[in-house]
Amino acid sequence: MPEITFWYAIGSTYSYLTVMRLSDVAQTTGLTFHWQPFNVRAIMIEQDNIPFARKPARAAHMWRDIERRAPRYGLSPKLPAPYPLEAFDLANQVAILGVREGWARDYTIATYQRWFEQGQPAGSEPNLSDTLRAIGQDPDRVLPLAQTDDILAAYDKATDDARARGIFGAPSFTVGEELFWGDDRLEDAIDWALK
Amino acid sequence: MPEITFWYAIGSTYSYLTVMRLSDVAQTTGLTFHWQPFNVRAIMIEQDNIPFARKPARAAHMWRDIERRAPRYGLSPKLPAPYPLEAFDLANQVAILGVREGWARDYTIATYQRWFEQGQPAGSEPNLSDTLRAIGQDPDRVLPLAQTDDILAAYDKATDDARARGIFGAPSFTVGEELFWGDDRLEDAIDWALK
Repeated sequence: MPEITFWYAIGSTYSYLTVMRLSDVAQTTGLTFHWQPFNVRAIMIEQDNIPFARKPARAAHMWRDIERRAPRYGLSPKLPAPYPLEAFDLANQVAILGVREGWARDYTIATYQRWFEQGQPAGSEPNLSDTLRAIGQDPDRVLPLAQTDDILAAYDKATDDARARGIFGAPSFTVGEELFWGDDRLEDAIDWALK
Repeated sequence: MPEITFWYAIGSTYSYLTVMRLSDVAQTTGLTFHWQPFNVRAIMIEQDNIPFARKPARAAHMWRDIERRAPRYGLSPKLPAPYPLEAFDLANQVAILGVREGWARDYTIATYQRWFEQGQPAGSEPNLSDTLRAIGQDPDRVLPLAQTDDILAAYDKATDDARARGIFGAPSFTVGEELFWGDDRLEDAIDWALK
């Protein structure tokens, strides 16, 4: 059975829809999804790809679009969520550590719940420590570890891997060499993986 | 029965998918679609929203995405199509005249066929005159008319109307005040119109 890599960054708004439904999708399809955080912000800045800042019409549509689509996945976000995130990198460095230790998915889901459903910015307190405690991780252990050179190097490597695959935004999905961008392409990625 | 306005510009790549399938969609759903050309380029420049120029990763994904999605609508484009268009404004001014005279839809479909399936840039020769003749219009009558102050004013007014509705890209769909952006949101617009 082919596998799908889910490339995301905590800070991406549309990733909320994917993060919150992907576990159900994996169960329904029988596909394995690899959750891979990366620094989408760095890539977007490099490419002068700034979708919402100083683009009020696009930003307004994005929030409304998420609001319209959320109910089909049983989601009730409070929108707009705080955006952009001040602690973007720390939120994702913790996720990188979580990949290594096996709790990235739970951390990411719980982080987005607090961010999009309770209005607490991801990567900042109280979201950060409350999320870690809720998934059984000790913030006093995790937060220093997430800021080591080792984790920073792994974060950079994930970003380099994404860039090399032509990834320019989040969420993205890869099936082998095939790239799909956007929560709205998850079904296309699944079709590709299953065909 | 509610109606849907289809806001498009000849020059938008994803509009190809919508243009080529919208007549079937109208028939299947029983909905009326108003084809409304406007100057999306002017709005995008105003908003510093430049999706593909100098963004090779985004552009590569866009062409591949269209290629992957086209077969589900029975389409076989030759990609990448020539892009961007040199004669963007003229192509759309003719469409504006076509709205007034009742042949905008036929003109737009035939233009996109030649552009995306035969590699002839829209708005330039031979696409422009061959398309007009194919839909029973005389280029010697149409082309001067499409460049009158009257048509330019109508083109500007359509663009002003789009901007006022929060439209920032093409294709877009409006159902009353509700805005949907992207060929991939056509089904959401239909669901909204029918609910």
